[in-house]
Formats: sequence, C-alpha cells, structure tokens
Amino acid sequence: MATQGQVITCRAAVAWEANKPLVIEEVQVAPPQAGEVRVKILFTALCHTDAYTWSGKDPEGLFPCILGHEAAGIVESVGEGVTEVQPATGVGVMMNDRKSRFSINGKPIYHFMGTSTFSQYTVVHDVSVAKIDPKAPLEKVCLLGCGVPTGLGAVWNTAKVEAGSIVAIFGLGTVGLAVAEGAKAASASRIIGIDIDSNKFDRAKDFGVTEFVNPKDHDKPIQQVLVDLTDGGVDYSFECIGNVSVMRAALECCHKGWGTSVIVGVAASGQEISTRPFQLVTGRVWKGTAFGGFKSRSQVPMLVDKYMKKEIKVDEYITHNLTLPEMNKAFDLLHEGSCLRCVLDMQV
Amino acid sequence: MATQGQVITCRAAVAWEANKPLVIEEVQVAPPQAGEVRVKILFTALCHTDAYTWSGKDPEGLFPCILGHEAAGIVESVGEGVTEVQPATGVGVMMNDRKSRFSINGKPIYHFMGTSTFSQYTVVHDVSVAKIDPKAPLEKVCLLGCGVPTGLGAVWNTAKVEAGSIVAIFGLGTVGLAVAEGAKAASASRIIGIDIDSNKFDRAKDFGVTEFVNPKDHDKPIQQVLVDLTDGGVDYSFECIGNVSVMRAALECCHKGWGTSVIVGVAASGQEISTRPFQLVTGRVWKGTAFGGFKSRSQVPMLVDKYMKKEIKVDEYITHNLTLPEMNKAFDLLHEGSCLRCVLDMQV
Repeated sequence: MATQGQVITCRAAVAWEANKPLVIEEVQVAPPQAGEVRVKILFTALCHTDAYTWSGKDPEGLFPCILGHEAAGIVESVGEGVTEVQPATGVGVMMNDRKSRFSINGKPIYHFMGTSTFSQYTVVHDVSVAKIDPKAPLEKVCLLGCGVPTGLGAVWNTAKVEAGSIVAIFGLGTVGLAVAEGAKAASASRIIGIDIDSNKFDRAKDFGVTEFVNPKDHDKPIQQVLVDLTDGGVDYSFECIGNVSVMRAALECCHKGWGTSVIVGVAASGQEISTRPFQLVTGRVWKGTAFGGFKSRSQVPMLVDKYMKKEIKVDEYITHNLTLPEMNKAFDLLHEGSCLRCVLDMQV
Repeated sequence: MATQGQVITCRAAVAWEANKPLVIEEVQVAPPQAGEVRVKILFTALCHTDAYTWSGKDPEGLFPCILGHEAAGIVESVGEGVTEVQPATGVGVMMNDRKSRFSINGKPIYHFMGTSTFSQYTVVHDVSVAKIDPKAPLEKVCLLGCGVPTGLGAVWNTAKVEAGSIVAIFGLGTVGLAVAEGAKAASASRIIGIDIDSNKFDRAKDFGVTEFVNPKDHDKPIQQVLVDLTDGGVDYSFECIGNVSVMRAALECCHKGWGTSVIVGVAASGQEISTRPFQLVTGRVWKGTAFGGFKSRSQVPMLVDKYMKKEIKVDEYITHNLTLPEMNKAFDLLHEGSCLRCVLDMQV
C-alpha cells in the first residue's frame, strides 16, 4: 500500500461552533504525510468526551473541528516511513507541519484527539491505529476504541481487583458497566452499583452488578451508606462520572488500611478533588486511569480477540444504530439516561 | 508476673492546659486491669505529634493529660488474661471501664494515644507493648516507637521503592531522614531532600540524601523545580511535614504514568488536600502511611534486631539527652531547626 497523494472529498459531521448542532459537510481530506495513515471510517461510536468538547467547556477544544475518537475502519493509504515512534497529537493539527489535513473550500478544519472519526475519511498518526483481526465485525468492535477498554482496564490494570473483593461503581453508563464486567471477570464477591437513576439498575445486572444504591434514597452521605452496607468500606471503588464530589465519596467509601479508589471519569476543566489527608494516612489509595491503562496499538487487538472468543461483551453496550446524517440525534440520545453507545454507519 | 493490685505514686509531666508549660507532678497510677500492662518507663523521646496535641490544635486532645508515645521501659505488672486482641485506645481513657488509670489526689488525668509515656509509670493495653531483645539499649531503641519506623516503613512497606528509583523527600526532620535512610537501603539512585532550612542539608547527607533543593531559592513552584530537575518527575515522593500545600506539591512532582506520593506528615485538623483529578488520571498514585505500615507488636522487635546488627541507624537521630525535669526544654528544642530527637531519662 503506497501513498496515493490525492485529496479525497467526502462527508463529515463538522462542529462549527461550541454547543451548536453539527453540520454534515463535504470536506477535503489531504493525503497522509510521513508517519500518517488515512483511514476510511466505517463505523464510529459517540462518547461523552466528544460531547464534553462539543459543549464548549473543554478549554483545549478548537472550533471548527471534526469530533469523534471511538471508531473502526480500513486503511486507505499511508504516508512515507510509517513508524511507531511519532507521538499522537490532540491539539487540532498534525505533528509534521502543525497543519490540519481537513479543509472545506480551502478553510482548515481542526482535528480532535488525533482521530476525528466523525468523517468518512480521516488522517491519523500511525500510533493512533491498531491493526485488528480482519474477521472482526467493525460495527461492533469500534467500541473497543475507548469506553469499554477504559472500564475493563481500570479493574484489570489499574486496580488489579482480586477474587472475593467488594467493589463499588459510581455511575452506570458504558464505562461503569464495563467496570462491572471486569470486576465480575475478576471474581469480585460483591459489585455495588451507585446511580441516581434507578432505571439503570435492571440492565446493570446483566453486566455483573449484584447490588444497587440510589443516593437519592438516603439522607446520609453516600460514602457513609456504603461503609455501613459493607461493614467498614469497600475494597475497590471506581468513579465513572467525572464529578469531583463523587470522586471524594468514592475514596471515602473505601475500607481503611487497603481500600483503593480509581478515578475513571473525566472532570470538567479547572475542577479539583479534595479530602482530608487522614483518609490516605489511614491506608486508602487514590489512583486514576486513562484508557484503562491499555496500550492501544498492542492491546486493542487482544481485546478484539477476546470479543471474538466471547470472553468480553461488546454488542450489549450498543443501544442505538444510526447513520452519519443522524449525528445530532446521537448527541441527543447520549444525554438521555437510556443510551449507552450509539454506533453510526459512516458510509450511508 | 502477677497483678500487683497496688497504686504506684510516681512523677509525670502533666499537661494541665493546652500550650502551657508541662508541670512535673506526683501522680497516682492505678494497677492494670484485664488486658492491660503497667510499664516502668525508662526513656522516652519527644515527637511532633506530642507537640501538636499540646498546642491545643488537636480537636481530640483532652486536658489535663499525660503526653508521650515513643518510649522504652520494663513491664512492672500485668492485668488478668492479657490477650492480644484488645484494641488500644486514644481517647483519653482505657477500654475496660472508660476510666483513666492516672490521677492526682483523686482527680483523673487523661491518657494520650494509649501510651502516656511522659510518666515514670504508665498503664497501656497489651497490644501497645512490643517485647524486644533484653540486651537492647533502651536509651536508644525508644526511638523505634514512632518516628524512625514511620520513615523506614513509608519506603519499604507503603511505597515499596525499587532499586534505581528517584526519590524526593519534603522535610528533613527525623521522619524525613528515616525516609532517606530507607531509600538508600532500597538502592534508590537519587534521593532529593527538600527543606526551607539549608542548614539541614549537611546532616541529611549522612542519612543518604544525595541532592538538596531549598524552595526559597526558586521562583517556580517547587513541583515544577523537581519536574525540571528530574526530566519529568520523581518516581516516589514523601511528605514528612504535615503541610497540605506541600502534600499537593509532593504529588504533582511525581512522574506521570507511575509516580507515587506518600503522605507521612500529620496535617492539622480540618485541613484538606486537593489537586486536579488529571494528576491521578494520568497515572500518579496518592497514598499515606501511619507508623510506616509496620505492625508494632511483631515488627518493632525485628527493627530492634536490625539496629543491634547495625543495619539501621538510631543513635544518629538523637541530638539531645535530657531528664524528666527538663521536659519543657525538650519542647523548646523540638521547635528549633537543629533538634531531631530529644531522649529523656525518666527515672532521674
């Protein structure tokens, strides 16, 4: 496969301004330069991080841009000397020349997270691509680009949950359910799901959650509710919302002496976590995780293989199937409680 | 050895009020009850935690009381059925009857930390006593009751520092120097001492510190100074002061991806630590330690043995030798920069 050197014109969902509906536009996608790969995106899912930047609350968000970072596709062409050492970029442009590969009538459109998968074609650094089993159904495994590995890895790589552990999960969206799945696979003895929407509880059982707590049903702080429920606190807790107050509660519901809390959710810019140092001095551990500690190039293919062997769920996280022209509907669904992942067919 | 059943009258340094000089008084020490031990204190050292409660800033501090918790002595008598399962108390009284064993002319004087070693005789729960090599010099190994094990254990038990690690130590008092000693024993490659008193640097070299940074010599935040100095951050940091701002700096000077910060110092009541969750999400770990994670009954004897085999320092932390009547002088010295540990001969 060689560099084609030709500009491709295709459709993409363009975010012209923060918090305004995306517009499906004809965009020009430049050929990949050295170390870059041009990918035909077949399926992309929508994640809360896309919606966060879209909302305008992300101080690093640049507009106009093409969002999207959880996707599967086919390599269309590659630039010269594709190596694995080039760092990916998240600042709206490519590293080679600090320019965008996207444009509309000559006006550049920014990249996002080095991926910009809300386009029928995108250009990414080679380190942002993982080569997977060609038999894998791309309309499913696109989910293994972000949320599901983040939850599984938080349990397996970051917390290293042992058999028999008591686990608390704050927030029962895609990531929280993946934490439950990971904890179940690790043979946790109790998996307590916490969410302010009790409607999420039935579905969560299928992912391994064994008990449910709705903070709205209690007058006490939720950390105290959990300490009481577990005779001293949980062994591991996971914050899967991005709320700094919940991050504190997640730490403080851990058992003294050994309880470990993992921050998985992404808080809004500028917000801070806090607690009394006594919480740590008495033996609790505060950690965080990004992409669950997985190395994307080498370990996403392994996760795809686990899915193909039915060792991990993927299909069960997909609640909606839409098409590229329905992108704004996908954003609307994401803000509804019932949606986990929307997968969009990008070539329709 | 049987219960004697007799009240002992002896001398003790009594803290009648917060922040007022201690008074050497004749006190009555009741016989030990079930599960308790009466100990003749031969030597006690003075630790910052004593001074903290004495200052009146500790909301759990009760007055009048007998302070002191780092000491060595000889068991004088034991109560019935001495077992190892009774929890120690730190709330000013003994567990059996919620009463104090100390009194002056019938007026009860509170216990402190379940130890109250600033008395020629004290009554403690059996779990607060560790039986050590009878050949050990008590005027030295009394230090193995608190500060030195706290520092060594923070490195060996809590952080588990590996050979070749870069270590930063905030605060070069007794605990910070013990951290340095522990890090050197763990074959850390660089041991960076941070203190606002450069006079402490010379002595710190003897304990293993290889480099020194005085935050007053820099305009940048100290965490940035350390990140620059170490090309990305340290592998392990230890806060040995009890200052919540320094605790934040200690976390933030750690290398992303794996850096671990351990809170060893005791912050004043009500103060909170804070940071951006991004610090943890990018792979740093925030921990704390109490008594370095050592189990006092089983592991203090092991530390005494290590001292007897010259595997750990103790003598080098003792900067002053005083007697019980000089207790207030010991408090004055503790607030001077040059003092590490004052050891008081309690039977003079």
